[in-house]
Amino acid sequence: MLTNSPTENLQAESSKSLPPADAKERVSQFMKQLQDQISQALEELDGLGKFREDSWKRPEGGGGRSRVLCDGAIFEQGGVNFSEVWGSHLPPSILNQRPEAAGHGFYATGTSMVLHPRNPYVPTVHLNYRYFEAGPVWWFGGGADLTPYYPFAEDATHFHKTFKQACDRHHSEYYPVFKRWCDEYFYLKHRGETRGIGGLFFDYQDGRQIGLYRGPHAEGEAAKYSNQLETLPQRSWEDLFAFIQDCGNAFVPAYVPIVKRRHPMEYDDHQRNFQLYRRGRYVEFNLVYDRGTIFGLQTNGRTESILMSLPPLVRWEYGYQPEPNTPEAQLYETFLKPQDWVNWTPSHT
Amino acid sequence: MLTNSPTENLQAESSKSLPPADAKERVSQFMKQLQDQISQALEELDGLGKFREDSWKRPEGGGGRSRVLCDGAIFEQGGVNFSEVWGSHLPPSILNQRPEAAGHGFYATGTSMVLHPRNPYVPTVHLNYRYFEAGPVWWFGGGADLTPYYPFAEDATHFHKTFKQACDRHHSEYYPVFKRWCDEYFYLKHRGETRGIGGLFFDYQDGRQIGLYRGPHAEGEAAKYSNQLETLPQRSWEDLFAFIQDCGNAFVPAYVPIVKRRHPMEYDDHQRNFQLYRRGRYVEFNLVYDRGTIFGLQTNGRTESILMSLPPLVRWEYGYQPEPNTPEAQLYETFLKPQDWVNWTPSHT
Repeated sequence: MLTNSPTENLQAESSKSLPPADAKERVSQFMKQLQDQISQALEELDGLGKFREDSWKRPEGGGGRSRVLCDGAIFEQGGVNFSEVWGSHLPPSILNQRPEAAGHGFYATGTSMVLHPRNPYVPTVHLNYRYFEAGPVWWFGGGADLTPYYPFAEDATHFHKTFKQACDRHHSEYYPVFKRWCDEYFYLKHRGETRGIGGLFFDYQDGRQIGLYRGPHAEGEAAKYSNQLETLPQRSWEDLFAFIQDCGNAFVPAYVPIVKRRHPMEYDDHQRNFQLYRRGRYVEFNLVYDRGTIFGLQTNGRTESILMSLPPLVRWEYGYQPEPNTPEAQLYETFLKPQDWVNWTPSHT
Repeated sequence: MLTNSPTENLQAESSKSLPPADAKERVSQFMKQLQDQISQALEELDGLGKFREDSWKRPEGGGGRSRVLCDGAIFEQGGVNFSEVWGSHLPPSILNQRPEAAGHGFYATGTSMVLHPRNPYVPTVHLNYRYFEAGPVWWFGGGADLTPYYPFAEDATHFHKTFKQACDRHHSEYYPVFKRWCDEYFYLKHRGETRGIGGLFFDYQDGRQIGLYRGPHAEGEAAKYSNQLETLPQRSWEDLFAFIQDCGNAFVPAYVPIVKRRHPMEYDDHQRNFQLYRRGRYVEFNLVYDRGTIFGLQTNGRTESILMSLPPLVRWEYGYQPEPNTPEAQLYETFLKPQDWVNWTPSHT
């Protein structure tokens, strides 16, 4: 079916690496394998919950397999999606960023995941990696970010260090730029807060430049990172695919040790209520700001798969403010601001 | 402070009625009185919960008073806001609709309300009325709509008939056009559902034409109402202000009898869970589609007042489908589609 995709004639550009003939098959194979690897690791970790799979077709071309785990021992809800879709044209929001793709069909494949643990000491986590081809252009995007409720600096440091190691094997500028991009993208302007302690985020990686997100939400703490555009020695398609694979494979070692450490911790209604309240921010971010969610909803995507990222139970409370000198206040004061987690020292906390 | 508003020089246009010199004072006085009338009626109805008021100032000009009732006997949460704001320019989203306002300051005042009852047999309800002046233009907008969980046709009929009576005192085309506009505006495209059983909605009423919303969400059931633009004999500012007052004053008689009828009904966890699930649609609508919410969040509005509309407790559930031949299925099949509630007969249900 891939040979029917209208986007396989990638035109040569002297300044840019071309994807190999089997690029789409290789990337989609990796994205499926990443979904398998993650869902298997999570089932083993949870010990009780099992993923239920729905396969779906998209009328305009392509489809996917959505996997959801509900009411596990650790995970109240978790979703891991794989999709591979194609069509006659990209939406305007993407064409603005990649005008060379105008008038061409497109191909896109990716894996995305959000986990909502039951225990408020275990952080929520999100991952997404994706690959696009459209006429003369192709690119990789994605990342992973962590959203704690009752945060621990050592967890933030472990999460960031794991992804930094994956990045550093490919380019010394990847981690610092993609870490900042993540702080900037996962930012709730109307709250003046980051979504969590960040991680990695990048988009439009085609080997020509690293770039840095400079969207409408680049304000406040995140704005100070916006005044640069990094360039790098040109990277080939193979270089970038190898980088994406290393990032994807870094997820399980980045997250699973944190869950193992925090899941045994006891909690009561007070912590649970704060978790449900903070989950509201996840909803606000995903529905108000997240480009993937909004794009999916507005372009006839599979609603249930897109909104699988929303938490199973959520609270809103008018005018909530954390009490001073509490763990809740510490979340706001320290963890919902961009921080240099890799070099964090205990004296900071 | 109103005399400092930069927007008081409304230019004459031969084809249009001018507001009186004290227009802003009279409308804002009415909006405050409407907030008082509604919050008093709701406190009496609830019997237990009391509104707590926060007054706030907006750095760019103006302010408001937000009133929230939490954990009442009937209302799990209710918010009634009054605001009166001004500034140097309207945002692009409004200027697109009213290009004559470009280059002018603006003044806006309004009252808005959302109530989330505890009992799933009592519907959620929303109301908003607002008035704008900007350079040579002025307009009224607003409406009220009902969102049942376990619906009753007689409640839908009562709600619509009450507002139809208010409309009919002013123009026979108001109710049919504003009822359709409401069905079209409060529509969740990604779900293929209306938000509830509708009511009234209108915008940009300046006496020249009635108009009809034709936004990006005008699809599906709502689309069939989109192919018309109603005109009417010109209405003066006084005519429209009288109409707005009648609409605002119709809220208590439209809603309170429904609450009195349904609040005594018994419910269990099954109904409560369905209510929490359906509340997710309210969140989805307000954060993804509602122009007022998005405008407020993106223009530095008071976040807590804007998001007071979100329910206190909400559930999402992947892949939920109502069982056939249940009250839940009936909600989807009959009540989440535009219907002629005023002429509804029992044989329909």
